[in-house]
Amino acid sequence: MTIVLGDNQYGKAETHVVRVTRGATHDIKDMTVSIALAGDFTATHLTGDNSHVVPTDTQKNTVFAFAKDPVGEIEDFALRLGRHFVSDHRAVTRARVTIAEQPWARITAGGKPHPHAFERAGSEQRLTAATCIDDAEWVVSGITGLMLLKSTGSEFWGYREDHFTTLPETRDRMLATAVEARWRYGGSGIDWAEAHGEARRLLLETFATKHSLSLQQTLYAMGEAVLEARPEIAEIRLSMWNKHHFVVDLKPFGLNNENEVFYASDRPYGLIEGTVTRDDAAPAGQAW
Amino acid sequence: MTIVLGDNQYGKAETHVVRVTRGATHDIKDMTVSIALAGDFTATHLTGDNSHVVPTDTQKNTVFAFAKDPVGEIEDFALRLGRHFVSDHRAVTRARVTIAEQPWARITAGGKPHPHAFERAGSEQRLTAATCIDDAEWVVSGITGLMLLKSTGSEFWGYREDHFTTLPETRDRMLATAVEARWRYGGSGIDWAEAHGEARRLLLETFATKHSLSLQQTLYAMGEAVLEARPEIAEIRLSMWNKHHFVVDLKPFGLNNENEVFYASDRPYGLIEGTVTRDDAAPAGQAW
Amino acid sequence: MTIVLGDNQYGKAETHVVRVTRGATHDIKDMTVSIALAGDFTATHLTGDNSHVVPTDTQKNTVFAFAKDPVGEIEDFALRLGRHFVSDHRAVTRARVTIAEQPWARITAGGKPHPHAFERAGSEQRLTAATCIDDAEWVVSGITGLMLLKSTGSEFWGYREDHFTTLPETRDRMLATAVEARWRYGGSGIDWAEAHGEARRLLLETFATKHSLSLQQTLYAMGEAVLEARPEIAEIRLSMWNKHHFVVDLKPFGLNNENEVFYASDRPYGLIEGTVTRDDAAPAGQAW
Amino acid sequence: MTIVLGDNQYGKAETHVVRVTRGATHDIKDMTVSIALAGDFTATHLTGDNSHVVPTDTQKNTVFAFAKDPVGEIEDFALRLGRHFVSDHRAVTRARVTIAEQPWARITAGGKPHPHAFERAGSEQRLTAATCIDDAEWVVSGITGLMLLKSTGSEFWGYREDHFTTLPETRDRMLATAVEARWRYGGSGIDWAEAHGEARRLLLETFATKHSLSLQQTLYAMGEAVLEARPEIAEIRLSMWNKHHFVVDLKPFGLNNENEVFYASDRPYGLIEGTVTRDDAAPAGQAW
Repeated sequence: MTIVLGDNQYGKAETHVVRVTRGATHDIKDMTVSIALAGDFTATHLTGDNSHVVPTDTQKNTVFAFAKDPVGEIEDFALRLGRHFVSDHRAVTRARVTIAEQPWARITAGGKPHPHAFERAGSEQRLTAATCIDDAEWVVSGITGLMLLKSTGSEFWGYREDHFTTLPETRDRMLATAVEARWRYGGSGIDWAEAHGEARRLLLETFATKHSLSLQQTLYAMGEAVLEARPEIAEIRLSMWNKHHFVVDLKPFGLNNENEVFYASDRPYGLIEGTVTRDDAAPAGQAW
Repeated sequence: MTIVLGDNQYGKAETHVVRVTRGATHDIKDMTVSIALAGDFTATHLTGDNSHVVPTDTQKNTVFAFAKDPVGEIEDFALRLGRHFVSDHRAVTRARVTIAEQPWARITAGGKPHPHAFERAGSEQRLTAATCIDDAEWVVSGITGLMLLKSTGSEFWGYREDHFTTLPETRDRMLATAVEARWRYGGSGIDWAEAHGEARRLLLETFATKHSLSLQQTLYAMGEAVLEARPEIAEIRLSMWNKHHFVVDLKPFGLNNENEVFYASDRPYGLIEGTVTRDDAAPAGQAW
Repeated sequence: MTIVLGDNQYGKAETHVVRVTRGATHDIKDMTVSIALAGDFTATHLTGDNSHVVPTDTQKNTVFAFAKDPVGEIEDFALRLGRHFVSDHRAVTRARVTIAEQPWARITAGGKPHPHAFERAGSEQRLTAATCIDDAEWVVSGITGLMLLKSTGSEFWGYREDHFTTLPETRDRMLATAVEARWRYGGSGIDWAEAHGEARRLLLETFATKHSLSLQQTLYAMGEAVLEARPEIAEIRLSMWNKHHFVVDLKPFGLNNENEVFYASDRPYGLIEGTVTRDDAAPAGQAW
Repeated sequence: MTIVLGDNQYGKAETHVVRVTRGATHDIKDMTVSIALAGDFTATHLTGDNSHVVPTDTQKNTVFAFAKDPVGEIEDFALRLGRHFVSDHRAVTRARVTIAEQPWARITAGGKPHPHAFERAGSEQRLTAATCIDDAEWVVSGITGLMLLKSTGSEFWGYREDHFTTLPETRDRMLATAVEARWRYGGSGIDWAEAHGEARRLLLETFATKHSLSLQQTLYAMGEAVLEARPEIAEIRLSMWNKHHFVVDLKPFGLNNENEVFYASDRPYGLIEGTVTRDDAAPAGQAW
C-alpha cells in the first residue's frame, strides 16, 4: 500500500473587484472572482517545492490587472482569465474561473437616471464558471439567490404513504422556493447577456404559469422551457429549496384561516435537485 | 447594598408571518414581527411567579390571529398589536412592536403582471417600531439593507493629521455605503406608505446629487432633505457604513488606474452615525 | 423651525488585529476593534469642513501601532486607545473603543501544549467597551455567543392566560439559551482577567444549578450571583434568547416521547432582557 | 433532439433534532440531519404523479421517530436512516443521509460536571454522510469549522513568478486556515468515535508539528498522517482556506514589526483543495 496524492486544485477565492467605466455616464461592474488551478502540483504537496506554483496573490493581481481592459460580460472576463492561466503557465492544465456578479441599478434623481449614482438591485447574483484546458473550454452560467413564491396554483397529493406519514394532502398550497440555476452552454458565438436574460425570464414565467402538482414538476418545466427556447443551452441544473409556509391554525381563536395567514419556517426545508438536458447534448467534459 | 432588578423587557422575537389577501389577484405581505413588553414583571424575576407573564407563545399566537384581519401598512399592524398588549394586560406598561417587511414584486408573465406569482424584490427591508404606553404612542419607521454607491462626486481632504496619518487626500473617490435609516413620526393622520416612499426617494436622490466632501456631510444632507420635505417626520437617525473601495495600484503591471479598478474591502469599514432633527421637535419620549 | 444636527459619532469599525508575542513559546491575541468618536464635528456635517476629523483610516493605523506595545487584557488596550483619542484630539470629547476577542487554545501535540500552534476555542467572544471623556472613563465588559442548555430543571406554568393562549403548562422543559452578558465595572485597580473569568464561571454555574421557573428568574439569579461575588461589578445586563426546543409528538408512530426527542426551532424565539444592579451603584454616566 | 430528465434527488434538509438520554446524568446529542433520495422519480417530474414520492415531511417524521431509539454515533444513525429509506421504498434506489453534530460540554459547577447542564463546545462540527443503495453502503465522515493557526514554522518562497507577481518571498509567515476534512471509511466493524477522535487528533498534531513550505505541503502531510495511522480510512479530502494575516507596515510610525502585529483579512483568501488516498483503496462508488 502506498499513500498517494489524488485530485487537487488551488487558487484565490472571492477577489471582490468593482470596475468603473467612466464617461459622461459611468457604468459599474461588481464581481467576486474565484480561481481554481489544477495541473502538475505534486511537488509542492510532497516536498514543498513551489517552482510550479503560481501564488494566489499573483492570481489576485491578475484579476485586477485584467479588469483594466474592458470587462464585457462576466463570461467574457472569466474566459479571458481562464485562458491566460492555462496558456501562460505550463504546469496549469485546467483553470476554472468562477464569477458572481452583484447587480446595481442607476438611482433615479429628478425623474432621470443619474449618471454616476447607483443603488444595489437585490440579493440575486448572476453566476458564471469558465473552465479552460489546453484545447477545450466550457461555460456554465446561472443565477443564485432567486426567491420565488406563488400563493396559489400549487397542489400536493397522491404521494406514497407509510408508517411515518402525517402530512395531509392539499389541493391549494403556497409554494415558495429559493432557486439556484446553473446551465451549461454549447456552441459558440453566444450572446451571453441575451441568453442570461432570456433564461432568467423563462424560469420566472414558467414558475408563475405552470400549475404545480409537485415542486419536481415545476423544476422540470422550468428547465424544459429554457432548453426549448435556447438552443445554445445544453443542460440546466436546478436546485430548489422548498421553503415551507404553514397555514396557521386559528381555530383556537375562533377564526377561519383559508390560506390567508402563514407561518414561514426556516428549517427544515425541502431540497429538490434536478438536471434537465437534451438527449443529444455534447458531453459535459470538465464543465462542472 | 442591595441587589435590585433594573430595566427589563421580554417578548417573542422574529415571528415570520406571510399574509395573503386573496381575490382575482392576490396580494402578499411578508413580515417579521418582534414584540417586547415592559411593566410589572418583578415577581417572575425574583421568585418565578409568572402570574403577570403573558407567554411569548401567546404573543406569537396574537400576531397570527391579528394578521387574519386586514393588515394595512406595517405601522398600522404594529400599532394595533402594541395597543392590544398594553390595554389587555394590566401588568404591561409598555409594548414595543418592531416589524421588518420583506419586499416582493409581481412576476411579469406574457408581458403582464401575474395575479399570484411573486419574486423577492431585493434585500432592503422596510422597518417600523411602534411603542405604546397607556396614554401615548410613538412610531419610528425606516429602512435597512440599503446599499448605495457613487463612482465620482465625492472628495475627502483637509482632515486633521497626526503621527498616525498615512491616508492621502483625494478629490475624487468612490463612495459606497450601506444605510440604515430610522425616522420618528410626529402628529397624526399620517399616510405611512407615502411618507415611507417619499423619505426613501429623498434619501436616494440626495445621496446621488449632493456633491460630497465627507460621508458626514452626505448623511446630514440626506436627513435634512427628508425633514425639509416631510413635516410629519420629527427626527431621522442615519447609520452609514463607509464600505471602502480602494483604487488598486496597477503600476507594477505597467498600467495606469484612473479610478477604474477598485478592490472592495469587507473590514474594517467606517461607521458614521448621526441624527438630524428639528429644534422644535416634540420630545422623543420612549420612541427609541 | 430649524433643522439641526443631533447626536453623532463616527469611527473605524472592526479592525481585525492579531498580536503575536514571540519567545520560546508564542502567545496570540486576536481582537476585532471598533472605535467611535464624538465631539465637535458639526462643521463636517454642515459644510464638509474636515479640519476636526481624524480619518477612520488614521484610527485603524493607531490600533495597529498601539498593538506593537504589549497589549495586556482587552480592557487595558481599549482604555489606552480611548485615552489617546480624547487627549490628542481636542475636538474629540468622547471616545468609545469596543473590542471583541476571539479565543484560541494551544494545540496539544505529543501530549504537550505546542509552543506556536493554536486551534480556535469556540465561537464565544469576550467583549469590552471602554468609554473615555476628558475627566472620566467607564469600562463595560462581557461575553457574547455563549450557548447554554439544561435538559431538565426548568418549569413554566402559572402564567397569565388570555384569548390567545394555547401553550400547555409544563413542570419539565428543556431550556436552551444564547446569552449576551455585559457588565459595568466600578472602582479601580481591577484584575480584568480574574473578574472576567469569575463572572463567566458564576453565570454558568448559576444557570446550571438554579432550578428555573422562568427564564427571567434564571436571568436574575445569574446576574445576582455575579454581583454578590464581585464587588468591582456595579451592574450587569443580560440578553437571553429562549431557543425553543419542542417535544416532538411521536404518538402517530406509536411511540411515547418523555422529553427525549426535541425539535430545535430557529425562529421565532423568546428574547428576555434584564438588568441587575446595586441600589447604591455609581451612576452609569456614558458607560453604555 | 428530445429534452430529458437527468440526475435528480430530493429530500428534507436540516432537520434539527436534539436527543436527550435521561438518567442520573443526562446525555445530549444535537444533530442537523439532511436526507437526499434518488431513484424512480421521473413521473413526478414529468406529470406531477407523486405515487412514488415519499414526502419530505415524512422524512422529517422518520428522523424524529428513529431518534427515539438509542442514537449511537452519528454514523450509526445515518446508516439506520439510509437503510430504512432504501429498503422500505422500492422507488428509492439511493439514500444519502448527512448529519452535522453540534458539540456540547458539561458545565462544571462546584468543581464537578453537572448532570444535566451543558455549554456549547465550539463552532466546529462533526460530520457524516452515509450513502445506501440496495446492496452496498458507504460512510464519509469529517469535520467542518476547524480553525487552525501557527504563528511561525511556515515559509513561502521559490514559487513561479510572472508579469503579475508582486508578493515578496518569506521564510517566516503566519499560517491560519479554516479546515474542512472529509474521509471515506473502508471495511467494517469500525469504531466510529475512536476513528473520528484519532483522525482529528492527527490532523491537528500534524498541522502543528510539520514545518510548512506551502499550505499544500501541510495539507498532504495532514492527510498522510491520518492514512498511515488509520487503516479503516481509505481516502481523505481536505479543503483548507488560507486566511491571510498580513504583517502591518509600522515604519510610517517609526516602529519595527517583526511578525508581531498582523491584519487579519477576510477576502480574498486562498483555497487549497486536495485528496490523499491509498493506491489500493477500494473504489469510492457513490460515497461522495
